Amino acid sequence: MKVGILGAGQLGRMLALAGYPLGLSFRFLDHAADACAGQLAPLTVGEFDAASVDAFAADCDVLTFDWENVPVAALRGSAAAKLAPAAVALETAQDRLVEKEFLRGLGIATPEHRAVGSMLELEAAVAELGYPAVLKTRRLGYDGKGQRVLRSAIDLGAAWEALEGTPLILEAFVPFEREVSLLAVRARSGEFRAWPLTENVHRGGILQRSIAPATDAALQREAEAQVERVMRKLGYVGVLAVEYFVHGGKLLANEFAPRVHNSGHWTIEGSQTSQFENHLRAIAGLPLGATDARGHAGMLNLIGRLPPREALLAVPGARLHDYGKAPRPGRKVGHVTVVEADRKALLDKLDALERLIG
Amino acid sequence: MKVGILGAGQLGRMLALAGYPLGLSFRFLDHAADACAGQLAPLTVGEFDAASVDAFAADCDVLTFDWENVPVAALRGSAAAKLAPAAVALETAQDRLVEKEFLRGLGIATPEHRAVGSMLELEAAVAELGYPAVLKTRRLGYDGKGQRVLRSAIDLGAAWEALEGTPLILEAFVPFEREVSLLAVRARSGEFRAWPLTENVHRGGILQRSIAPATDAALQREAEAQVERVMRKLGYVGVLAVEYFVHGGKLLANEFAPRVHNSGHWTIEGSQTSQFENHLRAIAGLPLGATDARGHAGMLNLIGRLPPREALLAVPGARLHDYGKAPRPGRKVGHVTVVEADRKALLDKLDALERLIG
Repeated sequence: MKVGILGAGQLGRMLALAGYPLGLSFRFLDHAADACAGQLAPLTVGEFDAASVDAFAADCDVLTFDWENVPVAALRGSAAAKLAPAAVALETAQDRLVEKEFLRGLGIATPEHRAVGSMLELEAAVAELGYPAVLKTRRLGYDGKGQRVLRSAIDLGAAWEALEGTPLILEAFVPFEREVSLLAVRARSGEFRAWPLTENVHRGGILQRSIAPATDAALQREAEAQVERVMRKLGYVGVLAVEYFVHGGKLLANEFAPRVHNSGHWTIEGSQTSQFENHLRAIAGLPLGATDARGHAGMLNLIGRLPPREALLAVPGARLHDYGKAPRPGRKVGHVTVVEADRKALLDKLDALERLIG
Repeated sequence: MKVGILGAGQLGRMLALAGYPLGLSFRFLDHAADACAGQLAPLTVGEFDAASVDAFAADCDVLTFDWENVPVAALRGSAAAKLAPAAVALETAQDRLVEKEFLRGLGIATPEHRAVGSMLELEAAVAELGYPAVLKTRRLGYDGKGQRVLRSAIDLGAAWEALEGTPLILEAFVPFEREVSLLAVRARSGEFRAWPLTENVHRGGILQRSIAPATDAALQREAEAQVERVMRKLGYVGVLAVEYFVHGGKLLANEFAPRVHNSGHWTIEGSQTSQFENHLRAIAGLPLGATDARGHAGMLNLIGRLPPREALLAVPGARLHDYGKAPRPGRKVGHVTVVEADRKALLDKLDALERLIG
């Protein structure tokens, strides 16, 4: 079965690495000729427009994406018929306002928010939500890009100037205790499985560290019930990640990604079946694999440049994932995973690795 | 670092799958344009002669092989300088007589054997070793090919006719209790690590099932000491497998493979670091990974054709490795691995999988 992937970044690369042993073959479409998944499967260089996507899809049995900003207008006809998850999931996730309204419509709590189309609306919105608040572009934000924190009226002008010209959303700042995410997978049959909740630490808007399982059974049950509702409503096939704030001990859904997700990278070593393999099993119509954790897993992103490979690999149990990307400030170029029998040993090892990574 | 691999079969394919996350890139040389590792890295189609190998090696930082019958004459000059393990290991393993004499020279017990160059020598050899005995070509045998079991004088003529024209070896038949193999890896620094002994079951000369760890600590120590001697003597870098008979509770070395080996496939899921990853770490000059087993692992070869993928993947914990090869009788087209917490659960699951595979 030929799997076509729109986008050829590290997520596509790890999908291919997980899928070859299943007997799947891969091809990628990306606008960058040096996109890193192209090192291990044929890469078509092209834009994500309807003509390119149609031509690319013609040679694929099933179509998926490793980038959630693929323009929905490019997904139509036979390409849309082969796509999993379906375009409606992309469309919903691509706009922060639509996404939050969709979640609320399913009875899922989200941070308070207001649509903002003008300076006047921004002023009205902060009057309602109070400070601090976060002004974000409704579309195309990632890794903290396209957002400004507003701490007082002084910040309004600069934030507006930086972001105006595109639809915006103001979100109440949530003084969360912690951030967690739920990764789940849904098969064509409707079969649903979730991995244990993952606790995430961001720095400068970029995911730095994930630890799983995060330990609250009640939150796990609640998150699973919510994510299954999301997936059922979207007729979803594949892996989806919902990112949550935990505030006052309760879940507040911040956003979801209709794809495999950085906070699920630990599943490669830390779970019976990785997010990458289960995404492929789902979209290829194969039985899903078990999502149980084995031990306590931790993942550290490698950002900007890879630390010396020798030092990382000399750490007992450290599993390196080098994405084959050129170094660049702020760029995710790899990650390291460790799995330990208990949480204390895991935290100690992550601390040691963080010192090494610098 | 660009790793060139001579031979592009399933071993090369699994090397690449293990090596991409380390940041290595791969290219293959094979005479078959449809060789299965070519699905995931550039494949040069050519013969294993000096000209092809030289041209291929020029674009590689390090050179290794997934097939132990690469002609040693093709490995010279700059290609030989990049090669790991070195050509002497290939040369020694390519001739069953040289191999056994080499092992005996290191004080390692092997089955009794005689060189056979004529019908007269064959008759003299069976007179000395007795029946049953096994007549084998000294070179190019694999998976039971190029050998005949002699049960009485009646078998001599037909066996001679089938195999004459090439140097032969007669080996005493060993009524072994079981067959085991030791996989080990040696770094450029001389650092040595071994995986737990693996018990292997062959059928029709082809490996059917491997189970690890095989449980005798004394045999483990003895095998490790022997294999380290072999590797030291050869100045070996990379993974090497020694296949043993266990007879009267003692090890008899039957042969060795200077490469990753089918009986080590379980290490992908069943060990901290797989044989594929550690082979690459060794030849790339990176620190070796831990070789501890996690739980009890079993591997079943899929031979001839793949059973229905859906049925295999529906077995909890079954890990499929489809090599992407066309079906053909007697051909290894994939394997399945399971890892269980105890040996009894493992054996039950392997039995169930064997019924499924048929």
